Amino acid sequence: MKKRNCFIGQSGGPTVAINASLAGIITKCHETNEYDHIYGMINGIKGLLEDNYFDLVDMFKTQHDIDLLMQSPAMYLGSCRYKLPDYQSDPQTYMTLFSIFDKLNITDFFYIGGNDSMDTVAKLSHYAKIMKSDIHFIGIPKTIDNDLKGTDHTPGFGSAAKYVATSMLEIAYDSSIYKLNSITIVEIMGRNAGWLTAASALARSAHSDAPDLIYLPEVPFIRENFYRDIEEVFKTKKNIIVAVSEGIKDEDGEYIDSKSKYAKRDVFGNILHSGTGKALETMAYERFKCKVRSVELNVLQRSAGHLASKVDLDEAYMIGQYAVETAMKGDSAKMIIVKRISDDPYQIECLTMDVNAIANQERCVPIDWINEKHNYINDKLYDYLYPLIQGEVDITYKNGIPNYISIQHLK
Amino acid sequence: MKKRNCFIGQSGGPTVAINASLAGIITKCHETNEYDHIYGMINGIKGLLEDNYFDLVDMFKTQHDIDLLMQSPAMYLGSCRYKLPDYQSDPQTYMTLFSIFDKLNITDFFYIGGNDSMDTVAKLSHYAKIMKSDIHFIGIPKTIDNDLKGTDHTPGFGSAAKYVATSMLEIAYDSSIYKLNSITIVEIMGRNAGWLTAASALARSAHSDAPDLIYLPEVPFIRENFYRDIEEVFKTKKNIIVAVSEGIKDEDGEYIDSKSKYAKRDVFGNILHSGTGKALETMAYERFKCKVRSVELNVLQRSAGHLASKVDLDEAYMIGQYAVETAMKGDSAKMIIVKRISDDPYQIECLTMDVNAIANQERCVPIDWINEKHNYINDKLYDYLYPLIQGEVDITYKNGIPNYISIQHLK
Repeated sequence: MKKRNCFIGQSGGPTVAINASLAGIITKCHETNEYDHIYGMINGIKGLLEDNYFDLVDMFKTQHDIDLLMQSPAMYLGSCRYKLPDYQSDPQTYMTLFSIFDKLNITDFFYIGGNDSMDTVAKLSHYAKIMKSDIHFIGIPKTIDNDLKGTDHTPGFGSAAKYVATSMLEIAYDSSIYKLNSITIVEIMGRNAGWLTAASALARSAHSDAPDLIYLPEVPFIRENFYRDIEEVFKTKKNIIVAVSEGIKDEDGEYIDSKSKYAKRDVFGNILHSGTGKALETMAYERFKCKVRSVELNVLQRSAGHLASKVDLDEAYMIGQYAVETAMKGDSAKMIIVKRISDDPYQIECLTMDVNAIANQERCVPIDWINEKHNYINDKLYDYLYPLIQGEVDITYKNGIPNYISIQHLK
Repeated sequence: MKKRNCFIGQSGGPTVAINASLAGIITKCHETNEYDHIYGMINGIKGLLEDNYFDLVDMFKTQHDIDLLMQSPAMYLGSCRYKLPDYQSDPQTYMTLFSIFDKLNITDFFYIGGNDSMDTVAKLSHYAKIMKSDIHFIGIPKTIDNDLKGTDHTPGFGSAAKYVATSMLEIAYDSSIYKLNSITIVEIMGRNAGWLTAASALARSAHSDAPDLIYLPEVPFIRENFYRDIEEVFKTKKNIIVAVSEGIKDEDGEYIDSKSKYAKRDVFGNILHSGTGKALETMAYERFKCKVRSVELNVLQRSAGHLASKVDLDEAYMIGQYAVETAMKGDSAKMIIVKRISDDPYQIECLTMDVNAIANQERCVPIDWINEKHNYINDKLYDYLYPLIQGEVDITYKNGIPNYISIQHLK
């Protein structure tokens, strides 16, 4: 008789690799032949609180099914943005969850997500310790922002970086066709961490030197320097491409778009930016009176499954598998991390780290990986980023569009 | 001794297929073994007026080089937006051009472009007739807008349509992860013709029914109907996806975004829209007070070479080849057109048409291909669109990004 039962959940914003981690967990559970039930929470911990889950144990048993799951973007299981309350202030929520765990004889709990999801893992494992529960709570990282502490990088980031670099290259081709001065501002996701904006530098090739300028949120954005930088580039070329993080701030720490009429806040109180590119477009036009436009890469940078990085998807799968091994070894309150052994040849290994040391923290681009003028990245950052976007995933298409699966029919 | 010399130019906005037509012309010129020089204008007719051209005759002689050219988006030869004056008002411009033609013993002139480019071909061939020049002026169609008369569809459209359908699918996956009401507005290019916005319907699959609503510029956009349509969809699902053309107009024929602060005009006096998605976002939020966002697909829909339609690229190449055959037969003042023989199996043939019947005209979506409620397309339009996005192009990557070529180094 099989003795293990687990829950798997996905939480936070979408990435292209999050279903690859799910695939890694499911296949490892199957391989061990020890899992009686593999429950998927629908819409994360919030869905679980509403008794919304189903059993995956008879699904994804062929390589074809696994491949389809791996190539599908966003969350197969759905997501939530839900901050688990402290157990002191709301013990009922914890009792509800643990009564479900008891009823189903849950031994392992796998939660795939970013900062806020690791907070959930930390809180649940803390409560379990107090209650002397021996359920293993394991966090599996994912975020296109690459801002989790402890790990060399996060699954999902490499694919987003590949999308950003490719789009940057294509925008450069688009903007270079006319013989006239032009400035194109490309706004890239990244609230406080500039990793993804930095990845635009990977667009440079023998045939295109875009982006010409890169502005990250880790250093202040100074309008006069921006003008000076553009004047400098105009001395040698006509079509300027600027990569800018949505989250750049001025010398007083104010977001450049904080006065934008589109400014909104998410449930955690974080400002949702969508006006930085437009703000720089206006600034540049007022000064240079040439053709200026802005492009917002928007949600596609985290959801374009057709342009995944093979390195990223393979690692996400491996991390999912490692999470099951970790739980079976008896560990809890851990997040799986990636340690880089070398850049060239690129080599990594999986390890674990105390989830409490990761939750609610943020890892930004080191200042000494940004150039002195604060308008580009340097070689250290380039060498770090380069391996993460390598390799293409040969996804399957159906009727001319990618063949992605979902659980729409189960809802 | 070889007796023919030609000019090739590219003009107007970028597409993913325009270099495939260039490849078709070059390879056919090579194959015939009759061309002494194959001149490429740099930046179209405007560049030619500045004596800016180079000889392509020794280039693109291997399949590898042709493949790289075919997979590279935008214009290898650069482009211009230049309206050729009438010869009566500005004979000097024509004398300048024809003196270059005389000097180089030009026999054939190939111009790849949209409406405005066909106007250039029409004017030059008209002048040639008056001057009793026997140069053959041939127009090769391209535009993502698919709005040229006479041809079943235009090269470049199929790839843009594939990008739009794929992006729509990925945006639908992105927006479906949370269990809350949301409206996502996706703004798609198309000034007066809704073909590309209509192509978003190709995103529908067994796993996703987005887009839920499609608004085309061929029918008036009525705000109250928009609200009614959304209310109707909310009855059965939570996450609504709306595809809207940038050029929708109200009952009085006013562009919905005409009062947008971003409204600009191009050199032909056409309004450059960029606020329609935002305008609908604001409308929807004011009425429904739920999560609303807008995504502008922007320039990537015309430049994302990595997601080309194989049908589109193959046809663009074939049309380029046919243009050379047409010139060699002694024709002039013609545009190459595509005639559809059947939808299923999909079959076409190349023909020619008098360029004067095409220039400065516009072909919109027939009203009877739009549903009665004016919020979706019907089966006739679906059947028309479906074959054009079929097939993927196995492009090559280098260092993790697509391997595109350019003439940056020649400039």
